[in-house]
Amino acid sequence: MEADRLRRGIIFILSAPSGAGKTTISRAALKAISDLEASVSLTTRAPRPSEVDGLDYHFVSDDEFKRRIGAGGLAEHARVFNARYGTPREPLDRAVAAGRDMLLDIDIQGARQLRQRYANDAVTIFVLPPSFAELEERLRRRGTEDESVIASRLKRARDEALAYPEYDYLITNVSVADSIEQLAAVVAAERLRVARLRQEFAPWKL
Amino acid sequence: MEADRLRRGIIFILSAPSGAGKTTISRAALKAISDLEASVSLTTRAPRPSEVDGLDYHFVSDDEFKRRIGAGGLAEHARVFNARYGTPREPLDRAVAAGRDMLLDIDIQGARQLRQRYANDAVTIFVLPPSFAELEERLRRRGTEDESVIASRLKRARDEALAYPEYDYLITNVSVADSIEQLAAVVAAERLRVARLRQEFAPWKL
Repeated sequence: MEADRLRRGIIFILSAPSGAGKTTISRAALKAISDLEASVSLTTRAPRPSEVDGLDYHFVSDDEFKRRIGAGGLAEHARVFNARYGTPREPLDRAVAAGRDMLLDIDIQGARQLRQRYANDAVTIFVLPPSFAELEERLRRRGTEDESVIASRLKRARDEALAYPEYDYLITNVSVADSIEQLAAVVAAERLRVARLRQEFAPWKL
Repeated sequence: MEADRLRRGIIFILSAPSGAGKTTISRAALKAISDLEASVSLTTRAPRPSEVDGLDYHFVSDDEFKRRIGAGGLAEHARVFNARYGTPREPLDRAVAAGRDMLLDIDIQGARQLRQRYANDAVTIFVLPPSFAELEERLRRRGTEDESVIASRLKRARDEALAYPEYDYLITNVSVADSIEQLAAVVAAERLRVARLRQEFAPWKL
């Protein structure tokens, strides 16, 4: 990845209500958009069979996780269903300093912490389902959950959707292709922002 | 043009040092980017043979121009080489209210006035030549100007380039095609901004 020495790097943060398609968009975006790096989270949960340590997650013990928090090594962290998740701080700081851009797929709580820490360098994007009827159908199509689980997920998604005003951009996920195109536009535009230019940038020297 | 009822319209303002290619980009952008309207300026100068009243400019008398200023009818106005130029206020206000977007190709002074008047609804873009050596070559290639005119234009362009930090976005005009693509990304991204959504937007009603 080529770094842009004339501007600071950008931390793109993608959040969404459960089931809106955030992970699909984020994975496709990392392939489709050039010079965008993934952040690898830390977690205390056990790896699933398909998951690779250091690629999908850094799998660590509870003690190691606590040690990292204590050493100020996490940019954000949260507990979800008895497991802990966190984002290592150093790769983000290095990317911003080197003019490289990262994409983080992260929950609303984590986004809040990152927004505070990287006020000038974070760009936050919220993904909504086209409608909650559509979201209900998506959950039902998975077929693996019973009605009470679907109802509680829908309730949670509706509650989470209330967070959209905290974000910079809103993408309505009508199709993954359209959403990727919109995300690519946000990335391309934010890379042109005058506010990210370093002092070394001097057009009169051009 | 279809208006977006859920958000306010955006006033995109394009400025550049003389000779950087702003007018070429702006004309091509109006063709290439969908749902983007041109603003027709008022001027007191005489129409050139190729120009159509009401399309290229609204050609008015000095008295009419002064009357419009007095009536608060101009969003910005400036004097350039013995002629006056101004942007009618009403079409901009109507576009913002109706959720339609406009593109204005305007000088640095005019951009300052519009930025003040439309603080939340204006998006400003500065176009720079790839280098001043390249700009000098472009001016020289036109072949119509003598050396002293080229020197004074270059000096003016360098002075004008100092205004770039006032703008939101910076486009380096390496090629018209690339610049249009970058401008299209800015337009697409700004249309997704949460801050432009009206109170009527309510995801929990989706």
